[in-house]
Amino acid sequence: MTTSTPNTLIDQLNWRYATKVFDPARKIPADLWQELESALILTPSSFGLQPYKFVVVTDPALKAKLRPASWNQGQVEDCSHLVVFLAQDDMSEANIDEYLARIAEVRGVSTESLAGYRSFMVGDLVQGARHAVIQEWAARQSYIALGNFMTSAAVLGVDTCPMEGLVPAQYDEILGLTGSGYHTVCACPAGYRSESDKYATLPKVRYAKERLIINR
Amino acid sequence: MTTSTPNTLIDQLNWRYATKVFDPARKIPADLWQELESALILTPSSFGLQPYKFVVVTDPALKAKLRPASWNQGQVEDCSHLVVFLAQDDMSEANIDEYLARIAEVRGVSTESLAGYRSFMVGDLVQGARHAVIQEWAARQSYIALGNFMTSAAVLGVDTCPMEGLVPAQYDEILGLTGSGYHTVCACPAGYRSESDKYATLPKVRYAKERLIINR
Repeated sequence: MTTSTPNTLIDQLNWRYATKVFDPARKIPADLWQELESALILTPSSFGLQPYKFVVVTDPALKAKLRPASWNQGQVEDCSHLVVFLAQDDMSEANIDEYLARIAEVRGVSTESLAGYRSFMVGDLVQGARHAVIQEWAARQSYIALGNFMTSAAVLGVDTCPMEGLVPAQYDEILGLTGSGYHTVCACPAGYRSESDKYATLPKVRYAKERLIINR
Repeated sequence: MTTSTPNTLIDQLNWRYATKVFDPARKIPADLWQELESALILTPSSFGLQPYKFVVVTDPALKAKLRPASWNQGQVEDCSHLVVFLAQDDMSEANIDEYLARIAEVRGVSTESLAGYRSFMVGDLVQGARHAVIQEWAARQSYIALGNFMTSAAVLGVDTCPMEGLVPAQYDEILGLTGSGYHTVCACPAGYRSESDKYATLPKVRYAKERLIINR
């Protein structure tokens, strides 16, 4: 199997930066976007439960409505594809049964054969201590998707800007999510940097390795 | 700049799975590990503040101590490198000043020139509404690192297993983190899958695109 060389990966992670100004004229080609959607779908999650959804906004009118809910950041309008990361409101036995049905479908096994896995998940997420923090648990899974998405985009030469600077309740209302069982946690515009973005060429700021990594 | 082809990325994300059994005899070569450490350090974070640290455990005795704190999962001992993701306990003006000093050092600017950025960060994270959820905010940044790490490893042909099934307080005690200003949020063993791992060849289970992606 062909894998990337380390230099390609690290070069691309160095090339990546939080894009402040997107070129509004440049759109991500449809076939490349399909690959990025596939990368999102392939995100790893706790137990594989995928307690998230992704809203992909390309409609200019909807982007314009979301901009004031995004601390007025221009990337929301000027990007090619705006990805909004949603987390599930709750995790019920019915949610787990939907997932088990999907496992049974994909792997050609009976749901009965998954009874032990069911008990394990229900014990942890529905009846266990994690249920008290279930929204945060789901939000964290969305952030795995955010991390995966930004790295995948960088590897493919697509610019992104992670965005926590937004009003989730306003996003939920504008996107019509009320009562959907999902809520907004963050967003990530994707597209291509404008040549006018002065941030593109600034040296990347990271703490020294000795400050961030503890070897044991 | 050389970028990966979409097929390489998607092939590798399909190749990736939550490794249940690592080959204890196979270690990640030092030069490859350095690249993965660089990828971790290059993780994007809110404002660039990097409110996390990464403990990299290779000592067999320490891994053995961590296993009972990890729901007895064998990957903790059999992996090559166990990465423990820590989040910062708090975010103070002093933390922000440390970051501003680093920006000034890397970019050759004065900290005075960053006064506006300082006010913005302090207003959001120290004095603003986000301070009430600052530990969770920091944990979410660690999860961006987790997502980036797993994708980076997959692209380089290294196996991983995201792990929330651990007792953070026991990890903190075993790793001597008490009073350090950081605490454990999750872990991720990395290394190479064992040929005996029956999970390696099971079809990957994801919901259909129509279930996960909402186009607007």
